Amino acid sequence: MFGLDDIILTALNEDIGTGDITSISTIPENKMAEGRFIAKECGVICGIDIVERTFKLIDNITTVKFFFKDGDTVEKGDIIAEVTGKARSLLTAERVSLNFLQHLSGIATRTHFAAKQIEGYKAKIADTRKTTPGLRVLEKQAVKTGGGVNHRFNLADGVLIKDNHIVAAGGIKNAVESARKNAPHTLKIEVEVENFDMLREALDAGADIIMLDNMSNEDMAKAVKIIDGRAITEASGNMGEKSLEDVAATGVDLISIGALTHSVKAMDISLKFKIV
Amino acid sequence: MFGLDDIILTALNEDIGTGDITSISTIPENKMAEGRFIAKECGVICGIDIVERTFKLIDNITTVKFFFKDGDTVEKGDIIAEVTGKARSLLTAERVSLNFLQHLSGIATRTHFAAKQIEGYKAKIADTRKTTPGLRVLEKQAVKTGGGVNHRFNLADGVLIKDNHIVAAGGIKNAVESARKNAPHTLKIEVEVENFDMLREALDAGADIIMLDNMSNEDMAKAVKIIDGRAITEASGNMGEKSLEDVAATGVDLISIGALTHSVKAMDISLKFKIV
Amino acid sequence: MFGLDDIILTALNEDIGTGDITSISTIPENKMAEGRFIAKECGVICGIDIVERTFKLIDNITTVKFFFKDGDTVEKGDIIAEVTGKARSLLTAERVSLNFLQHLSGIATRTHFAAKQIEGYKAKIADTRKTTPGLRVLEKQAVKTGGGVNHRFNLADGVLIKDNHIVAAGGIKNAVESARKNAPHTLKIEVEVENFDMLREALDAGADIIMLDNMSNEDMAKAVKIIDGRAITEASGNMGEKSLEDVAATGVDLISIGALTHSVKAMDISLKFKIV
Amino acid sequence: MFGLDDIILTALNEDIGTGDITSISTIPENKMAEGRFIAKECGVICGIDIVERTFKLIDNITTVKFFFKDGDTVEKGDIIAEVTGKARSLLTAERVSLNFLQHLSGIATRTHFAAKQIEGYKAKIADTRKTTPGLRVLEKQAVKTGGGVNHRFNLADGVLIKDNHIVAAGGIKNAVESARKNAPHTLKIEVEVENFDMLREALDAGADIIMLDNMSNEDMAKAVKIIDGRAITEASGNMGEKSLEDVAATGVDLISIGALTHSVKAMDISLKFKIV
Amino acid sequence: MFGLDDIILTALNEDIGTGDITSISTIPENKMAEGRFIAKECGVICGIDIVERTFKLIDNITTVKFFFKDGDTVEKGDIIAEVTGKARSLLTAERVSLNFLQHLSGIATRTHFAAKQIEGYKAKIADTRKTTPGLRVLEKQAVKTGGGVNHRFNLADGVLIKDNHIVAAGGIKNAVESARKNAPHTLKIEVEVENFDMLREALDAGADIIMLDNMSNEDMAKAVKIIDGRAITEASGNMGEKSLEDVAATGVDLISIGALTHSVKAMDISLKFKIV
Amino acid sequence: MFGLDDIILTALNEDIGTGDITSISTIPENKMAEGRFIAKECGVICGIDIVERTFKLIDNITTVKFFFKDGDTVEKGDIIAEVTGKARSLLTAERVSLNFLQHLSGIATRTHFAAKQIEGYKAKIADTRKTTPGLRVLEKQAVKTGGGVNHRFNLADGVLIKDNHIVAAGGIKNAVESARKNAPHTLKIEVEVENFDMLREALDAGADIIMLDNMSNEDMAKAVKIIDGRAITEASGNMGEKSLEDVAATGVDLISIGALTHSVKAMDISLKFKIV
Repeated sequence: MFGLDDIILTALNEDIGTGDITSISTIPENKMAEGRFIAKECGVICGIDIVERTFKLIDNITTVKFFFKDGDTVEKGDIIAEVTGKARSLLTAERVSLNFLQHLSGIATRTHFAAKQIEGYKAKIADTRKTTPGLRVLEKQAVKTGGGVNHRFNLADGVLIKDNHIVAAGGIKNAVESARKNAPHTLKIEVEVENFDMLREALDAGADIIMLDNMSNEDMAKAVKIIDGRAITEASGNMGEKSLEDVAATGVDLISIGALTHSVKAMDISLKFKIV
Repeated sequence: MFGLDDIILTALNEDIGTGDITSISTIPENKMAEGRFIAKECGVICGIDIVERTFKLIDNITTVKFFFKDGDTVEKGDIIAEVTGKARSLLTAERVSLNFLQHLSGIATRTHFAAKQIEGYKAKIADTRKTTPGLRVLEKQAVKTGGGVNHRFNLADGVLIKDNHIVAAGGIKNAVESARKNAPHTLKIEVEVENFDMLREALDAGADIIMLDNMSNEDMAKAVKIIDGRAITEASGNMGEKSLEDVAATGVDLISIGALTHSVKAMDISLKFKIV
Repeated sequence: MFGLDDIILTALNEDIGTGDITSISTIPENKMAEGRFIAKECGVICGIDIVERTFKLIDNITTVKFFFKDGDTVEKGDIIAEVTGKARSLLTAERVSLNFLQHLSGIATRTHFAAKQIEGYKAKIADTRKTTPGLRVLEKQAVKTGGGVNHRFNLADGVLIKDNHIVAAGGIKNAVESARKNAPHTLKIEVEVENFDMLREALDAGADIIMLDNMSNEDMAKAVKIIDGRAITEASGNMGEKSLEDVAATGVDLISIGALTHSVKAMDISLKFKIV
Repeated sequence: MFGLDDIILTALNEDIGTGDITSISTIPENKMAEGRFIAKECGVICGIDIVERTFKLIDNITTVKFFFKDGDTVEKGDIIAEVTGKARSLLTAERVSLNFLQHLSGIATRTHFAAKQIEGYKAKIADTRKTTPGLRVLEKQAVKTGGGVNHRFNLADGVLIKDNHIVAAGGIKNAVESARKNAPHTLKIEVEVENFDMLREALDAGADIIMLDNMSNEDMAKAVKIIDGRAITEASGNMGEKSLEDVAATGVDLISIGALTHSVKAMDISLKFKIV
Repeated sequence: MFGLDDIILTALNEDIGTGDITSISTIPENKMAEGRFIAKECGVICGIDIVERTFKLIDNITTVKFFFKDGDTVEKGDIIAEVTGKARSLLTAERVSLNFLQHLSGIATRTHFAAKQIEGYKAKIADTRKTTPGLRVLEKQAVKTGGGVNHRFNLADGVLIKDNHIVAAGGIKNAVESARKNAPHTLKIEVEVENFDMLREALDAGADIIMLDNMSNEDMAKAVKIIDGRAITEASGNMGEKSLEDVAATGVDLISIGALTHSVKAMDISLKFKIV
Repeated sequence: MFGLDDIILTALNEDIGTGDITSISTIPENKMAEGRFIAKECGVICGIDIVERTFKLIDNITTVKFFFKDGDTVEKGDIIAEVTGKARSLLTAERVSLNFLQHLSGIATRTHFAAKQIEGYKAKIADTRKTTPGLRVLEKQAVKTGGGVNHRFNLADGVLIKDNHIVAAGGIKNAVESARKNAPHTLKIEVEVENFDMLREALDAGADIIMLDNMSNEDMAKAVKIIDGRAITEASGNMGEKSLEDVAATGVDLISIGALTHSVKAMDISLKFKIV
């Protein structure tokens, strides 16, 4: 991924500070070692490229061999990858590589299980902008790896008109017209609605996507019928705590879940070394 | 905090991209607004400075007023802060300020409840290096805010000798001696032990801190007795899933919990705007 | 504009090097001066904020007063702005401020005259990604200032399927379907077509925008009729050298012109100082 | 060129944003392609190294083969270079490589034709500091490639005393003496003069270079005679709109033309791909 | 060393500016050369890696061969290293590589001779935070290379309580207790004392390290006896101007010398080229 | 000075790491303090602006008041400046501000005494490119502050033809001609000569400056006579160890001394705080 090195180098700088004083002090410079990344629980792997690049940025002679690829499901005990190189280099890169791998695999895993819950429905799991500062591109990649789809990446690549935009613009109609006039024509226009009046206004204004925000499942089902294919429908609002199958059953196109990225449980993965 | 702006600017760049096209398109430039950060659940607030700085970096005329400070406990419904400024500026800064505040408050809250579980014992909750890449200083500050203590910040400001260092150095004695000779004398030397033989060797070698890794509570209690004040004791290994009170009852000085920072549940906080 | 300082600082560093040796050598430190930006030809002004920020970054005590705002048309001889401050500071900032102002006003001016040629038609003038490396956001802002509209800002905020994507995907239908499945649902899908067969395929595949590339005006008029409002239409291909009115008369929605930004004629503006 | 990567990476980041969503969505990861850069008009090529480096920074396995080198004249239809690699990688790098190549070749071409106009005279075409912000080193390289010479790169590597420096210093004599005393002795001292009185003062003060600013050709010829080899002579002031041959005939050493870099017409070059 | 490239690139940018105009102007592009680093005086070499990396960053085809390694003592006339590559590349990298090598070898050499003066005593030579801005990690590495030990690298990896901290905290006891409670438990606590009262308070408070600041040798000897192994002892205060042997004879563990890094005498090393 | 903040921020980051743990741990947040910079020896002050900016970058409310300005001579015991602010802020900025001030004042002081030695002669003390990596602009400013003059700042703003350039170009004549043709005409051309043959060739070639490298004083005096005002003369080669007055007596224009910046003795300055 273009730009990946900058993110990894930031993490390495943060973790290494002025030097890995323990490894430098206790391990002879040319001592070799090998290590194995082992899944301590079932999950979906994400972050293979980052792991490899992290070890390479510390020491280009380190080799990394993967037995799985991003998106693969692993079982407890599976060996995900093997690294071989200087013991110092491996130990210095260990924590950062794990921090990325566990975090991103945690996201991919949760997305995967969310997607499984709604299999058979047309709805898809989508992410949000509720991501960890500095890691958005990686986290959105993890959502895709887990079987979800990406909502807009930032404020520039999607128009999403919320209540405040509506008030400031003087109504949904004005807001949609302003957006259509001023935003690049390459972007669809999404409107967040909270009730049926707003929904009808949004439809009349020609919204391309309608976000049904914090509606009951019954209302969402009704809204989907009213919309009747004239706009893409997105269910939103504490979806992390609802039965996703029930939401999918309302007929919406997308279920966006902030918790996928704002409340991540790291996947349990360990790295065991052997000095050789 | 020195260096804070760089972290916030990275997050803002990531979220804004080439511009907040929705706000620019729909909201007149000089429209004013005010917003309130409201706690949607009980928790410990952390990130006040970052919230203020985020709004200021977008627009220096925005004012932010806080009703709580870092470390305060808020109840559901409490107004945490008020922001006043141009509507465009507030909406552009909204998501980034929330992403920081919810993440850090989530960490402070979890730490707070962990610390409460062991009240009355001498043990303290400590963090680890299992942090989110790029956010370590902030996350460790959040642990402190929640009532925990900080373990080393990076590989340079603490010596922690693990199994591989021991193997490479040819035993605990050699490893500790090498570290004492090569590391700055300002740093204590910590040794990770998994059994009583290693424990005794570490004590003999003069370790300043002994990490009891993945031991049963019974063994930890026995270890604490053996150590008898000659070293600081740290309980470690999946502490996020154990009864912290039981661990504290073993008499250890520190309980370090990776999950405090690697598996964060964002605190639920919303920002409600009113166009004025 | 968020992020503006970085662009200006790059330009100032480039122009100042290790110091403005002439001004430092010849002008007493506290000598004051005032300067006037004067239009040497008729045009549309763009870059007011940048000019002010450039002087402020060199010396915060400099004051800048504008008599026009971005988008205003000025005549030869008009005083655009006045700057007052230390003579050294003004002379050091002079060239960079002019380089930005003349370049962006050149773009706004050309766009303005292009837009005037098609007044009365529904077509709008649009920009492209053929911008000067490093200045895209500013140049696109200049196009808007001149009365044009913005096409996508980068490869991430618009889907534009060209001939090679079509070949690689195995036809227009496949390409559009792949894009709809993999790209964020917030983005419209544009297809570039060169003939009527491609046009019909694109329409059948449900393209949101159709780019008519290098077609004769007659063919474009025919294409617009075939499309009949089912997609946005964009005329493209050496538009910088055609009669824009003739193109607009074909009924297209957008005329995108690379030359607006790849072949810029700087607007003639001078800055005259008076030592006081 | 040392430092080149930073400029290219800025351009790539700007153009790619969070990812080339069209190519990722429609083109299989390992699909290969080849492309040809074709001259659509006659011109002088400049930017070969940048083109190669742009493709390599996106994907190191891409190969680039050139049939011309910087400074060569190409005719319409000539194949300038061939690139071979993964289709995704080539498409992602396409626009940035063309933006650089067309811009710099545009400058080299214009310089070349300017230089040809004054063949046989001793005068040389020189550039100015009126360059595109962020691209000065590249643009000055393009001027040299086209057969021109470089004026100072920035405010630190040349002393150029203009009217305001003269006023502030209290006359030409004082200004030149201050500069000689305070500026590094490695730099020549240039004085801008507008009439014969100033010219004589500058000569008396020992100026190394004299810029004849906005003088008629007759006056410049007279000035050259007065100077009589005691200083380098530079003709300046809207030279982009004059007969360069007439100016050269005045006997000046240098003709500096801001329009070479502030009003660039991109050379028309296309990149045609073939999926393989 | 991780992060080394950034420091070298800063130095190269600073020295090269917009290009090595002399070499580009006078040396044909493909002319080869070889060069030898020759010691012009006796000393301890430090900076081998930086020299190699500097040449490689300018031109990856340059080869560097060393005849000594960091920490080796060289005599006047010894050939330290040989470089081979394009003449232009070698000349462009020359000054920066020498500036680093001479500076760091100067530090290593002075440290070496300081350490030699106290051979046979238990005391060790230590550095301070009185380093050259931007070069701390390298300079501390040079101290180690010369046979010294490192004090804390920065304000985060060591606790050093000085007079002002003591006053602000309300006495040594309070200051040490606050530090023990708030600083990471991985750091030792050092207290700076100026007399015997302070010394006893620091001992009572349980200080891990005691800095004897600006004491006479007699007082230091007495202090060492009082401390009697209960804390590490550090002699400090204008040690650069004292007889180090006399100080060592007091029995202190460490002698910290600011002058090692704040008053560096560059080692005399030349680089002689031969065009081939 | 433009760009100063970057240098100071680098130094602060280096010194602060993840935080000034001692001050944070022991000093209440709002405790105020004042401090005085006191000269511990006679010298010439340089770095006033940097000291102020360092304190301001840590805490904008800190005030700094100076009793001397750059270039002033202070005596032992003089109070150079007073700072007032939060105790934590002052202590955090202390070391970095001193490191800059002592280093630059050390350079200014040495330059000042060197310049005094040659008072009455026309020669001036000049610096070289033998500066500390990362600090060149500041160090050259310090040389000027001490009464010296600046040689070229980098490889781009001066042409200095040395033996290797001469060999590669095929003689002095060729080298000078190539430089005159290829380098900007704003730069003088300097040639380094080691004997009278080279000197005459350089004069014939029209060199603007002639560096007399490692010549005896007798030879230099003779060279000055031969040159007879046709070029600027510069004495070079271990000037730091010679009698500068003897060198000046040879009649050279410049004496360049690498040791001014490569072998700096920090001026002894202390900062004494008082908690208030």
